[in-house]
Amino acid sequence: MATVPSVSNSITVRLEVPARGNAVSQITTLVESSGGSVTGLDVTASGLEALRIDVTIATASVAHAEEIVEKLRTIEGVSIGKVSDRTFLLHLGGKIEMSSKLPIRNRDDLSMIYTPGVARVCMAIAENPDDARRLTIKRNSVAVVTDGSAVLGLGNIGPKAALPVMEGKAALFKRFAGIDAWPICLDTQDTDAIVEIVKAIAPGFAGINLEDISAPRCFEIEARLREALDIPVFHDDQHGTAIVVLAALTNALQVVGKDIADVRVVMSGAGAAGTAILKLLLAAGVEHATVADVRGVVHLGRDDLDDSLRWIAENTNRSNRTGSLKDAVRGADVFIGVSAPNVLNGEDIAAMAEGAIVFALANPDPEVDPAVARQTAAVVATGRSDFPNQINNVLVFPGVFRGLLDAQSRTVNTEMMLAAARALAATVGPEELNANYIIPSVFHADVAKTVAAAVREAAQAAGEAQVTPGVTETGSFPAIRN
Amino acid sequence: MATVPSVSNSITVRLEVPARGNAVSQITTLVESSGGSVTGLDVTASGLEALRIDVTIATASVAHAEEIVEKLRTIEGVSIGKVSDRTFLLHLGGKIEMSSKLPIRNRDDLSMIYTPGVARVCMAIAENPDDARRLTIKRNSVAVVTDGSAVLGLGNIGPKAALPVMEGKAALFKRFAGIDAWPICLDTQDTDAIVEIVKAIAPGFAGINLEDISAPRCFEIEARLREALDIPVFHDDQHGTAIVVLAALTNALQVVGKDIADVRVVMSGAGAAGTAILKLLLAAGVEHATVADVRGVVHLGRDDLDDSLRWIAENTNRSNRTGSLKDAVRGADVFIGVSAPNVLNGEDIAAMAEGAIVFALANPDPEVDPAVARQTAAVVATGRSDFPNQINNVLVFPGVFRGLLDAQSRTVNTEMMLAAARALAATVGPEELNANYIIPSVFHADVAKTVAAAVREAAQAAGEAQVTPGVTETGSFPAIRN
Repeated sequence: MATVPSVSNSITVRLEVPARGNAVSQITTLVESSGGSVTGLDVTASGLEALRIDVTIATASVAHAEEIVEKLRTIEGVSIGKVSDRTFLLHLGGKIEMSSKLPIRNRDDLSMIYTPGVARVCMAIAENPDDARRLTIKRNSVAVVTDGSAVLGLGNIGPKAALPVMEGKAALFKRFAGIDAWPICLDTQDTDAIVEIVKAIAPGFAGINLEDISAPRCFEIEARLREALDIPVFHDDQHGTAIVVLAALTNALQVVGKDIADVRVVMSGAGAAGTAILKLLLAAGVEHATVADVRGVVHLGRDDLDDSLRWIAENTNRSNRTGSLKDAVRGADVFIGVSAPNVLNGEDIAAMAEGAIVFALANPDPEVDPAVARQTAAVVATGRSDFPNQINNVLVFPGVFRGLLDAQSRTVNTEMMLAAARALAATVGPEELNANYIIPSVFHADVAKTVAAAVREAAQAAGEAQVTPGVTETGSFPAIRN
Repeated sequence: MATVPSVSNSITVRLEVPARGNAVSQITTLVESSGGSVTGLDVTASGLEALRIDVTIATASVAHAEEIVEKLRTIEGVSIGKVSDRTFLLHLGGKIEMSSKLPIRNRDDLSMIYTPGVARVCMAIAENPDDARRLTIKRNSVAVVTDGSAVLGLGNIGPKAALPVMEGKAALFKRFAGIDAWPICLDTQDTDAIVEIVKAIAPGFAGINLEDISAPRCFEIEARLREALDIPVFHDDQHGTAIVVLAALTNALQVVGKDIADVRVVMSGAGAAGTAILKLLLAAGVEHATVADVRGVVHLGRDDLDDSLRWIAENTNRSNRTGSLKDAVRGADVFIGVSAPNVLNGEDIAAMAEGAIVFALANPDPEVDPAVARQTAAVVATGRSDFPNQINNVLVFPGVFRGLLDAQSRTVNTEMMLAAARALAATVGPEELNANYIIPSVFHADVAKTVAAAVREAAQAAGEAQVTPGVTETGSFPAIRN
């Protein structure tokens, strides 16, 4: 696939150029002719002889950026100084911080925020632990927990290298849902240890967002934590993805005029995301699903089934197909890929049923080139931001947690996830819905609050919401209410 | 001791009073005559017949506040509405939050802060884990870790009830040293588990502040974590207290013209704080120390010595005294109490050597009434904010961690703590030093930066500071520097 210049690959190059002559226009011409895009040009010092210029250039990749810098060196009279990577500059010192909500100006402030005043607040919570939701940060705090074992598409890069992603996630939680999230990057990949650690840190949080933990450990970790804790535990790579896929599929089926119970769905990928998508689709009414992994279609006759694959074999593929993904896709109504680049080609997509829906979600390179798929499929979606219909978890996790926290929910269940998917799908109005707009932008103003309201109501309906305390006794101070 | 009205025990009472007549002045008169103090009076609604007034009243205690409210009910024509506890109101929803340092306005911002741009930053750290200090929040982040086993003077109130204190601590870290601290309140009091958990969460932090963990477990937890981790681990209840006590003692000795090597020091209390103070005093040059606990003076002949008491017996009390605390204090130059209220009286203090120094630090009620002690002792300090010379850890932990973080120190050792104490003592200039000002206010502008500079230098001198990376390669992008 062609790559285009992106700000996420921007560099700023400091150059010294002769004050006279056309060096500046030579620079911009050369950048553009090399496939880069000049997005900023600042003269930072000017003298009789020379100018110092900072040129910001969007490039297609690291290698492309290096290539452009090397070409700039060849311009007569131009010397190159520091070259900065703008994405790295943004990350210097990290992306989030802790702030105090209250000023600490004098001894009076200190005496209420800290000792001696804080002691009464502590004792009120000791007498009534539920008051922690009222009198502390617990109510609005989420731990973003990873072991660094499956970070983005980068693999097992460890807890320190995962931290930039977790910080970004925390920033998104705040931006889209006003939630205070803090990254917890664990220096262990032992399932038992992770379960014990997350259980132990839970008192200070109202929710746990598991992130980038590899399969199959993520299934067990999530299941055991949900069993043990009285706050919701949500593995975003699984359920966030599943919810946004279901929302997009709901709208795509409307575009092609098919019913969810009738379509034949073929999935590529049986990892964390694939399994969660499958389970949510089944809960939403999909009757005919088939899953393929690297060894082909999952069926009960295979001798390599672990617990997770066995569950899939038992709950899908009713006609007991065997063979390859390509075989399975022939005549299918829906393809959903959460696997690897280029496992399908244009012919495979052309062989699908009329009104085919293709979600090719492998990142950065999808299961099939979306431009090619679009030639025969009715609706195409990817995980990429440079094609229509981006399937992006940012549409889901802020609103889901906002709803869970507002309900003070003790858990998150399938009903709540179905409600989130329905609400997300409904943010695309009937007059807006078409093959190139089945899912809204992450910057759509209504998304998080619509999803949050649906999840909150589902939690309350499920009886998992805790009673909102409202005006309650403080415990230590019976006559005086707060 | 007499208690005086304090803002930390403030209430706001909503009253309806007749629009005519002198009800308002009756209210203020009654509050003042009951020992309360009116600190605010707002008319929040006014009509022909009645006024609604919010009166804020500083009281001495919860019981005192209730007593005043009951008296207000007796005023003719006055009806009482909601009564709010101002300290509780301040705590609603917690005291700290997570903030994003970067705006997320559009897809370009998102592409640099999160995917796809963040992947290059992750890979740079995966290739060079030390870059986490440069490209993430690690550099400036401290975990405030507690198990809720020894919170303030409140005892074992558990992790949720401890959270208001940890939030306050985090707020103070930011206010005084610009540090991003996040509370981690653990739902376990098992030593092994706490050690494993803190080791596991360490990758995202540059320092660990242990807080309110009971002795003797706190000694083992700290020792094992220091051994295991490459970031400093500091139990503030021990070392923060020890540093501020040594700083105050250094200045008090100057006031009375005695040398640290010559004075006889008697301590009451052999818990976490007492033991840490003792060790730092010995490191600072105290030659003659004796420690008493509830069973009297610690000496080698006692049959109840655990490891910690045995260490004390072996390293103090050279003349092998026995007997009670009161016996030991007779003729002593310095008394330091970190134990229980009223274990000494005025006669005990009068029996000390001339130029006696008394640090009675039990909170809220000191080992001896400071007003009584001051009748014969030359210098008196307490942990209370309503007497001169408050021994307050807030003077220490922000600056100590600022210095450790700036040095990217792998540890914290006795030399660094001695340097912190010297620096803190030196913030009181020779022209300022007197018996009522041996230690500055926590709001003294120079304290944290002076302490930080001393700790940073000590860390660098000890070879524990990591090389400041400065301008380094990004790993994934060799030609382009950041």
